[in-house]
Amino acid sequence: MPSDARHPHRWGFADTRLEFDGPRSVRMTGARYPLSGQSMPHLIPYVEQMLGVPVDQADAVPESAPQVPVPRLNAALMASLERLLPADRRSTDPIVRLAHSHGQLAVGEVDRLLYGGHFARVADLVVEPVDEEEVRAIVAAAIEHDACLVPFGGGTNVSGALMCPEEEARTIVSIDMRRMSRVLSIDRANGCALVEAGITGSALEEALAADGYTCGHTPDSLEFSTLGGWIATNASGMKKNRYGNIEDIVIEATLVTPSGTVETRRPAARTSTGMQPLALVFGSEGNLGVITKALIAIHPKPEECRYGSLVFRSFADGVAFLKAVRADDALPASIRLVNSREFRLGQSLRPAAHGIHAWKSRLQRTWLFSVRGFDLTTLAACTIVMEGTRREVARQESALRRLAKRFRAVWAGAENGRRGYSLTFAIAYLRDFFSQFGIAAESFETSVPWDRIAEVCAAAERALTVEAAARGVSGHPYLSYRVTQTYHAGVCIYFTMAFSGRGLTDPGGVFHDIEQALRQVILDHGGSLSHHHGVGKIRQRFLPQVHSGAGLELVRAAKRGVDPGNIFGIGNGACGLPQTGSSIK
Amino acid sequence: MPSDARHPHRWGFADTRLEFDGPRSVRMTGARYPLSGQSMPHLIPYVEQMLGVPVDQADAVPESAPQVPVPRLNAALMASLERLLPADRRSTDPIVRLAHSHGQLAVGEVDRLLYGGHFARVADLVVEPVDEEEVRAIVAAAIEHDACLVPFGGGTNVSGALMCPEEEARTIVSIDMRRMSRVLSIDRANGCALVEAGITGSALEEALAADGYTCGHTPDSLEFSTLGGWIATNASGMKKNRYGNIEDIVIEATLVTPSGTVETRRPAARTSTGMQPLALVFGSEGNLGVITKALIAIHPKPEECRYGSLVFRSFADGVAFLKAVRADDALPASIRLVNSREFRLGQSLRPAAHGIHAWKSRLQRTWLFSVRGFDLTTLAACTIVMEGTRREVARQESALRRLAKRFRAVWAGAENGRRGYSLTFAIAYLRDFFSQFGIAAESFETSVPWDRIAEVCAAAERALTVEAAARGVSGHPYLSYRVTQTYHAGVCIYFTMAFSGRGLTDPGGVFHDIEQALRQVILDHGGSLSHHHGVGKIRQRFLPQVHSGAGLELVRAAKRGVDPGNIFGIGNGACGLPQTGSSIK
Repeated sequence: MPSDARHPHRWGFADTRLEFDGPRSVRMTGARYPLSGQSMPHLIPYVEQMLGVPVDQADAVPESAPQVPVPRLNAALMASLERLLPADRRSTDPIVRLAHSHGQLAVGEVDRLLYGGHFARVADLVVEPVDEEEVRAIVAAAIEHDACLVPFGGGTNVSGALMCPEEEARTIVSIDMRRMSRVLSIDRANGCALVEAGITGSALEEALAADGYTCGHTPDSLEFSTLGGWIATNASGMKKNRYGNIEDIVIEATLVTPSGTVETRRPAARTSTGMQPLALVFGSEGNLGVITKALIAIHPKPEECRYGSLVFRSFADGVAFLKAVRADDALPASIRLVNSREFRLGQSLRPAAHGIHAWKSRLQRTWLFSVRGFDLTTLAACTIVMEGTRREVARQESALRRLAKRFRAVWAGAENGRRGYSLTFAIAYLRDFFSQFGIAAESFETSVPWDRIAEVCAAAERALTVEAAARGVSGHPYLSYRVTQTYHAGVCIYFTMAFSGRGLTDPGGVFHDIEQALRQVILDHGGSLSHHHGVGKIRQRFLPQVHSGAGLELVRAAKRGVDPGNIFGIGNGACGLPQTGSSIK
Repeated sequence: MPSDARHPHRWGFADTRLEFDGPRSVRMTGARYPLSGQSMPHLIPYVEQMLGVPVDQADAVPESAPQVPVPRLNAALMASLERLLPADRRSTDPIVRLAHSHGQLAVGEVDRLLYGGHFARVADLVVEPVDEEEVRAIVAAAIEHDACLVPFGGGTNVSGALMCPEEEARTIVSIDMRRMSRVLSIDRANGCALVEAGITGSALEEALAADGYTCGHTPDSLEFSTLGGWIATNASGMKKNRYGNIEDIVIEATLVTPSGTVETRRPAARTSTGMQPLALVFGSEGNLGVITKALIAIHPKPEECRYGSLVFRSFADGVAFLKAVRADDALPASIRLVNSREFRLGQSLRPAAHGIHAWKSRLQRTWLFSVRGFDLTTLAACTIVMEGTRREVARQESALRRLAKRFRAVWAGAENGRRGYSLTFAIAYLRDFFSQFGIAAESFETSVPWDRIAEVCAAAERALTVEAAARGVSGHPYLSYRVTQTYHAGVCIYFTMAFSGRGLTDPGGVFHDIEQALRQVILDHGGSLSHHHGVGKIRQRFLPQVHSGAGLELVRAAKRGVDPGNIFGIGNGACGLPQTGSSIK
């Protein structure tokens, strides 16, 4: 098994998982992350304290082998695809088909698969085109033989976007785009690269770095998610202040639809040429066609990348600081603010400290909490990434330190900042570890105006307490949150919710119901339906609250225009309404 | 006549025009602009030199009264609108109808109207709603009585967007939105304002300034164009580096269509909620419905606004400087680069200098040209606007001055910078003055990658020489250009073309043919169809070169989805294809 092999269903690399290295201690396997190999004695106690339930190795539920429905194969279509693609790029293997029929929703997808649930409908066939011509031929075959096509990128969505509609009677063909991963050309003079859409973020950065460039798009799923997937979900990356969100990065994209190829033949930095077809490709979630390539902005690797971190007395102080940073002219590439619970989760992942390290760590904590009077249960922490020329980075750090004083913050150093960002890549492994104990965890996000941040967070916390109690959840439900992006008119808040399903008859159903209740509360208090995760299936039913009927019709009519036969029948977002038969719940 | 009255057809305010104040000297009437009232002895000689034709007061062609076709009024519709709107907000006056049936294309629209041409089809009726409910009622009446609706903002487009399709048999109702000009609310906490779409740029800035805010969107048409028009054309403003282009400024917009209102009920700074209806409202050019209001970003008035200017030895040096400025982290709100001809046009508008001023001016020129060795026919000049805190502005100026040295530029002071920007607002008055001598002038723009700037400019110059010669144009055709916006991957180039129609049988037709030939040349050399002017009618036939067929179908299907009866039948951009019967040419 090559070292970069992924687990077919769980998050991440097959070589990386959490495992017990003592009765109350865990470690991360492999050697890929800063955390890997280190013993973490604080995590289980923290989780037990937060959730109010014991985590006992003896209680681990073993994974069961997922059940996979038999494929419905249209013989004429199969014959046609056999002529198009060699056998090693067509698969009806049950695990491969299943792996292409879900994303990374913990409760509705991964846990369900691994702990005895099953999917009524999955992809019948997985194909792997190597170029745009093959994609066109696959689309033509699907039209001829009345099949349903589902583009597949990294499979990292957390919106149910890859769940197949149960009522789909046609053969469902998943088009795995990951063999289309070439950087086709680099245009140094204009700072652009033409890149195939199946490239993962890591592979893209590696390829560009060889020429001294970076794209800078850094979603938490960077290692697995693809350029095409970013466009289809309208993705956001942590360093968007410097590099932009995906809609700022992509200058032009090519979309192969049943009516032909949607593309602009004269891509330009900015145009006014009427209604832009490209505008609908962002957030198209597989409904329109296959994104095959894109022209993206690239940048010389920055001269310097420096981390920073700050500790605030309260989340409110931190928010006021974030707002002040926007008014200044020294916005760093990334700046995030975590609440106390999330800060403590990060701290709980620290290795056991020994000797001088233990002494230094104790001293720092003593100073912060006793001398400076910070309260561990109410503080907030900010992690910062600064990129640019040496002068630019120095100027940013100096401006941030100056501003921080106004908000009574303590500068907590580069190492804590770096650590904060590296945790981003570890968090889903934690989720998968705890699921064997019936602990369900999910993240969801929203964008809110600046003056609604406190209200939305408080309302979500209140609603979780009420909803969990009403449903007989044992222990305490957990909700942490962080501000991951700031904009002129508001921010993105990223929530992590967890609780133990112990003792519940239908823990998945309870989790889903509570999550939907929280989404409604967030909407009711001025939050958006999603900042960057997308709609997929799990947010679909909220769309009529968000867009007017004519607005939904505008985009659905566009879909019908290029895909009158609904070949791309995955049914995400507006294109899955009004048929409400999502297979989630 | 109130002082803010506009000329019904020509550009601008009725109190402002150029007139002779001597046989070879002109002045601008009124008192509205820095240029107003001053004698300008250098302009006519410069134009004569550039165009190689004499400009003699005696040759001025008098304006003729425009002919206006009789209105086609649908009695049932009229009765319905009479119930909806008082008489002072409904007009069938020929001049009012005509004024609502064109934009500011010099040759195809304004000159044609004033010098003996006519329009075969114009609006039959002009209505002025005061609120969104009235707009909805007008749309309902149009559906019931089968009328055609045309939203009207400032009437400043230069794309033929307001030209009525000749074949339109229904009653054409122009909806003048300018009575809907209120700032409905200001949200200080989140830096937003909800504003009715009929407000002009000047009125918007005035209203916001009363509360200490600015929107910062500054198109050259600021005094007349409206928020709704900006959205419908996907407008760009000169200070976009600081405030963004219109798509960055508008957080949410409301569009009233025949199928209902397109709007987002949970506007947010950034979302990922599937395909965005709002995305198609930008550049919709009146094809989808009426934009009634928008939520826009606003900013506290900057602490400081400072101008600057630079003179370069060559346009290429200036371009290299612009690119270096982008790589620095001190991008000013606006930075523009004019070529030598445009620089000299600006210089030709200077008032006669006397005494110490004349001496100082001569001395400066002597120093620049004799001592520093600049060549007036090859130099280029940069004008700069810096806005922000005092510290920010100081930092920008210092960075720009430092960079300028690397590109052998001479800092030419704040006053020349301020002057450059104030000329922006005067230029269309010049155009209208010279049209009485048969001199036609038009501007058009494109966006090009950085490494195509020189090529596109040279190709346009060459093509103009060849095309003009082939068509027997007398004198020399004139082409000047400037870079008005810079982006990561390219720039906007703004061309001004002029020549004398003297001796041509069909000067308007020749001008149109040459302009279309130049557009093709620009496209062939890697330019876009438009950076911010839009498509309207005059760029329509190039659209199939720009967007693939499936791309055009995607947006046209969206249009049919919300306007199946083509009530909004103005036929701009993709929505006017394939019916090729534009009334231009």
